[in-house]
Amino acid sequence: MTRSAIFAVLLFFCNTLSAQKTLRTIQSPGRQTSVSVGLNRSGEIFYRINYRNRPAVDWSRMGLTTKSVDLSTGFKLIGADEKTRDETWKPVWGEVAQIRDHYRELEYRLQNEAGHRMTIRFRAYDAGVGFRYEFPAQNGLSTVSVTDERTEFQMAGDHTAWWIPGDYDSNEHVYTTSKVSAIDCAHYEREGNIYTKHIVHPKNVQTPITMKMADGTHIALAEAALADFGALHLEADPKNLKFKSFLIPSADSTIKSVNTLPFHTPWRAVLLSPDAAGILESKLILNLNEPCKIEDVSWIKPQKYVGVWWEMHVGLASWDYEGPQEILAAGQKPTFRHGANTENVKRYIDFAGKYGFDGVLVEGWNTGWKNWFGQWKEEIFDFAKPYPDYDIDEVVRYARERGVRIIMHHETSSAVTSYERQMDAAYAYMNKYGMNSVKTGYVGKIIPKGEWHDGQWMANHYVRVAERTAKNRIMVDMHESVRPSGQHRTWPNWMACEAARGQEFNAWSAGNPPEHECILPFTRILGGPMDYTPGIFEVRMNTYVPTKKEVVHTTVAKQLALYVTLYSPLQMAADLPENYEKRLDVFQFIRDVPVDWDDTRVLQASIGDYITTARRQKGTQNWFLGSITDENPRDVQIKLAFLPPGKTYEAIVYADGPDAHWDTNPYPVTISKRAVKKGDVLRLHLAAGGGCAVSLKLLERG
Amino acid sequence: MTRSAIFAVLLFFCNTLSAQKTLRTIQSPGRQTSVSVGLNRSGEIFYRINYRNRPAVDWSRMGLTTKSVDLSTGFKLIGADEKTRDETWKPVWGEVAQIRDHYRELEYRLQNEAGHRMTIRFRAYDAGVGFRYEFPAQNGLSTVSVTDERTEFQMAGDHTAWWIPGDYDSNEHVYTTSKVSAIDCAHYEREGNIYTKHIVHPKNVQTPITMKMADGTHIALAEAALADFGALHLEADPKNLKFKSFLIPSADSTIKSVNTLPFHTPWRAVLLSPDAAGILESKLILNLNEPCKIEDVSWIKPQKYVGVWWEMHVGLASWDYEGPQEILAAGQKPTFRHGANTENVKRYIDFAGKYGFDGVLVEGWNTGWKNWFGQWKEEIFDFAKPYPDYDIDEVVRYARERGVRIIMHHETSSAVTSYERQMDAAYAYMNKYGMNSVKTGYVGKIIPKGEWHDGQWMANHYVRVAERTAKNRIMVDMHESVRPSGQHRTWPNWMACEAARGQEFNAWSAGNPPEHECILPFTRILGGPMDYTPGIFEVRMNTYVPTKKEVVHTTVAKQLALYVTLYSPLQMAADLPENYEKRLDVFQFIRDVPVDWDDTRVLQASIGDYITTARRQKGTQNWFLGSITDENPRDVQIKLAFLPPGKTYEAIVYADGPDAHWDTNPYPVTISKRAVKKGDVLRLHLAAGGGCAVSLKLLERG
Repeated sequence: MTRSAIFAVLLFFCNTLSAQKTLRTIQSPGRQTSVSVGLNRSGEIFYRINYRNRPAVDWSRMGLTTKSVDLSTGFKLIGADEKTRDETWKPVWGEVAQIRDHYRELEYRLQNEAGHRMTIRFRAYDAGVGFRYEFPAQNGLSTVSVTDERTEFQMAGDHTAWWIPGDYDSNEHVYTTSKVSAIDCAHYEREGNIYTKHIVHPKNVQTPITMKMADGTHIALAEAALADFGALHLEADPKNLKFKSFLIPSADSTIKSVNTLPFHTPWRAVLLSPDAAGILESKLILNLNEPCKIEDVSWIKPQKYVGVWWEMHVGLASWDYEGPQEILAAGQKPTFRHGANTENVKRYIDFAGKYGFDGVLVEGWNTGWKNWFGQWKEEIFDFAKPYPDYDIDEVVRYARERGVRIIMHHETSSAVTSYERQMDAAYAYMNKYGMNSVKTGYVGKIIPKGEWHDGQWMANHYVRVAERTAKNRIMVDMHESVRPSGQHRTWPNWMACEAARGQEFNAWSAGNPPEHECILPFTRILGGPMDYTPGIFEVRMNTYVPTKKEVVHTTVAKQLALYVTLYSPLQMAADLPENYEKRLDVFQFIRDVPVDWDDTRVLQASIGDYITTARRQKGTQNWFLGSITDENPRDVQIKLAFLPPGKTYEAIVYADGPDAHWDTNPYPVTISKRAVKKGDVLRLHLAAGGGCAVSLKLLERG
Repeated sequence: MTRSAIFAVLLFFCNTLSAQKTLRTIQSPGRQTSVSVGLNRSGEIFYRINYRNRPAVDWSRMGLTTKSVDLSTGFKLIGADEKTRDETWKPVWGEVAQIRDHYRELEYRLQNEAGHRMTIRFRAYDAGVGFRYEFPAQNGLSTVSVTDERTEFQMAGDHTAWWIPGDYDSNEHVYTTSKVSAIDCAHYEREGNIYTKHIVHPKNVQTPITMKMADGTHIALAEAALADFGALHLEADPKNLKFKSFLIPSADSTIKSVNTLPFHTPWRAVLLSPDAAGILESKLILNLNEPCKIEDVSWIKPQKYVGVWWEMHVGLASWDYEGPQEILAAGQKPTFRHGANTENVKRYIDFAGKYGFDGVLVEGWNTGWKNWFGQWKEEIFDFAKPYPDYDIDEVVRYARERGVRIIMHHETSSAVTSYERQMDAAYAYMNKYGMNSVKTGYVGKIIPKGEWHDGQWMANHYVRVAERTAKNRIMVDMHESVRPSGQHRTWPNWMACEAARGQEFNAWSAGNPPEHECILPFTRILGGPMDYTPGIFEVRMNTYVPTKKEVVHTTVAKQLALYVTLYSPLQMAADLPENYEKRLDVFQFIRDVPVDWDDTRVLQASIGDYITTARRQKGTQNWFLGSITDENPRDVQIKLAFLPPGKTYEAIVYADGPDAHWDTNPYPVTISKRAVKKGDVLRLHLAAGGGCAVSLKLLERG
């Protein structure tokens, strides 16, 4: 539909009696947002979202199409109920101690001539809007095969957008900043270093996509509580500045998802804020998710960890015990240096025990890494069979003595059917060893063949993993999964996902540009914590392999700041123990920084440019502050307004050292201490690609 | 390749030094068959099978192609070893008490220029030949994605063949009898009554395909020990009277199977016999399978059973508790008559207990039948949740008191991923109730979507089910699975499959022609027992629903004879208890006939025309005899040469009554008794579509 055609529809819509009769509008409790919905004479559904009395999403279509019935037209309104809810809930862990869920709800009930019933539920918050489609159990319709979602989002201008392409299989892309009118993914198709990607629509982008309007208002289009449905992508219509929903399809290419009634779609969420910081502080996505389904959550604990991982990425060791094409005769030694050997793992355990880390991740511990990659086959990995040089009994015993837990690793190679068959046994094996955390991985093309990482089948799988791990009192960190959409409210054992371009890309690809970490919190991380694995001190890969040219695009000080600016209840200190032991003064910040918080303040933010965040440690009066910048150096002033009055704090400032620069001089860090109090101003210089980390410890005498 | 081109190849082949150097020939122990194999100058592999000094399979190509390497050409011979084996083994159950495995073996070892190694293992039996491709673990090749099998079977004439189309998803077809030159499946594509079928190649037929040569020699092309590979179909080349192997593909349409080295293909089996009876008595397929993998087999017992099943097929009851689109309000009664209700099941238990049946199958007992069909979706059935009108505790208690076991039913609706997730729980549920038999079903299109009933993924699934049920001491009977290929030697708890057009088609389709049961033992049943469900006394469906025109194309006497001619360790008395109770004199044969045998003699056989088989009951001197015919009446003389000398038997003959005829007069059965001894001749008249059953009981005084 062209803009003029839409205009015609709207004129018609607004002027007819039938449309007037079906029009309903709700306002958010603080009157910041309003949502209107109505039907035109054909029974098609249109909605509009206003923010602060200006259109945020202008009149746009709604509905679904299915194989058997078109659920986007021919509707009559059969009822509309409104209610207000105001509740406060406490997350098991998070950025804040409690969250207010305060909205006005509209239940808009429709029926078509064949008697098919559909409800659209809208929730208007001051900070945005959520809506979803609901299908009650009904005679004559017990299963629907969804072929398309018709929901559109008509933007009110040519906003600046931060986006990655609508890849069915990967979120591991560098972000593009462009006008909505300039969205084009063509160059991503030529991009290397992502083995499993599937980009077929040049105008399709992933959610969340975040935009800045001309007046500074920010809007993010996202989804919440993805389950039993394909993930939501958006097809940009650059000419009309509009997005149309696009659901990731299933292996049956004509079908997006098959659903048994009663069912409802995930929430479609529109986050709104007068500034960038408000987007980061939004709790809309979490609020749209279901409350916690786990009764006893006492075993769920945020944690910091180290692990046998980065040494494989930098080329010092292998996941595999043998070479990929190697067949070892009896007694023959492998040509590879296998990282997950007992002695090496003990070295990490010693390090973790000495410096107070909770866990040691061990990748490459189990059989299957020989020839695992890119084969699109099942039955590769055995999740209960260690390699011969990994004495798991001894390692677990050794770790237990030092107060450290081994973190299990389940790389599925995306042979998900294989994994589902082994899940129960694999979790029982973990329980036997007292392991309560697992990192899962989905590298490669999905089996069941034809399904996608972000389609309905896998969306259901991830939820199944969350459920089954919960049942076994296991926390889970998913890599190469679909991006989260707030499900950690419901399954707080689902600690984190990767589901974006993580630190690892810096070890073996063009890497992540300095702005990358200034975009992630506004897009991918809106849906939930990311296991980004910060903390790299040795940023130049030629340290390990002289021919390697890759570098981490960061200063060391910025790596510290990421522990605050990139929120996660699960944070790795990703570098090698020997690199930390060379700079224990700098490393002290990583030892000190917590992973669970009572309060969070985003002090300064501009998407893709800079973020300054302060957080208060769970159960204490201590604050931690991180400030990061993109490729541009910055001088920032931070007013310590958030400190309690009348108290003195010891501020330890980990700043970029003299002449620091991500490219030319990434290493220098200047550490300084001073006493500060509420209202003081910290003046910090951030180098190009740099950052600053500050710990603010309440002094006893304060 | 045209015939003349082949001839050129062969001329070349036979005349070159390199070919002569690679040519190897083995002969079967009794010199009935010989196999020759050699390479031409291009390193392509050719083989020939002679039977009684005449070509059975003339020079034909061999080899595989894979995505990365062509394993059908460029080979050199690096070794060839021969050995002879002669062993006798005892099946856990079967047609005979022991089986001789006696063959000459050739291990033909090849290597190509890239160093890839492949072995072809041939076994020459007096009754046929088996061969398979083997890939030892080797450097440089750890996974292969098989794109095609090149094996060809050059027939020596335009034989008469009995075949069904190369359907990826179903074996439930009526057989066609035609010359090899006339094979054409086009009409099957228009055929109704098979919901899930996929016939794409008009010249493709399924294995086993059995043929009769002009001189009366019979040849069957089959496979043995199907696992981890797509099932073997054959693409007919009618012009050249040749078959080329065609493997059922995977969801990745370019790939037939993905295999990790070391691996070997299933066996390709060529059964040879001077007459039709010899094909029925062949143990070649069983011998090519691996020995039993179950240590304690004491719990595995052949059995006869009745069940809540036929009443659904004839339209008296439903699997479903509610109507498919029905939503019951509290207290509202369903409009359907649900078969699997407690009271009805107890009626079957009473019947089974009274007449000595081992089990009662109960279909439709669990939730999920509402809207289960044709939706291609997961999570339909719950295998641990009975319908509200089925009191499983009470039913199991009631059955136990009467010495009867309930047979579990797991209809998966082909949502196999769902089933695999529930398998452990489902078998634990059975164990809890002391159930040790399950009938599984795979109606509908397979999930993982894109996989086929007969492809590698499902071949692996069926073996997994056999393994997991064995682990839980459960016997399994698979419906809508791939046809078996002798795996019951390895997994004797895998009692039977349907995997062909069974009795049920007579209840609601054009049905099975009278010749059908005279073909099945020569084709489908060569691979393993079939749960055909014989024993229908009320053959006219208008008895139940006046408007129904369907009939079973049989006389009642023939239904009795099927218990002997269609071998299975699992036999249903499929009709309703009330129909048996009306004719207890006729029913007596079903009560008497056993399901396990020490000896079997096929006395007379002609494919598609007639079969007369005698079997000796396990552990006794009693014999049972069945004789069936197609649509033609026959007078048969059966010499009782197989009885032991000097003993007297009471023969009870259940013969077609006066003027019996499958169409016009199916019901009359004449029962007569007399004393017989070795050498006596039974003269029997078989009506059109009729048969005769005889029990031969050793008289104590005999």
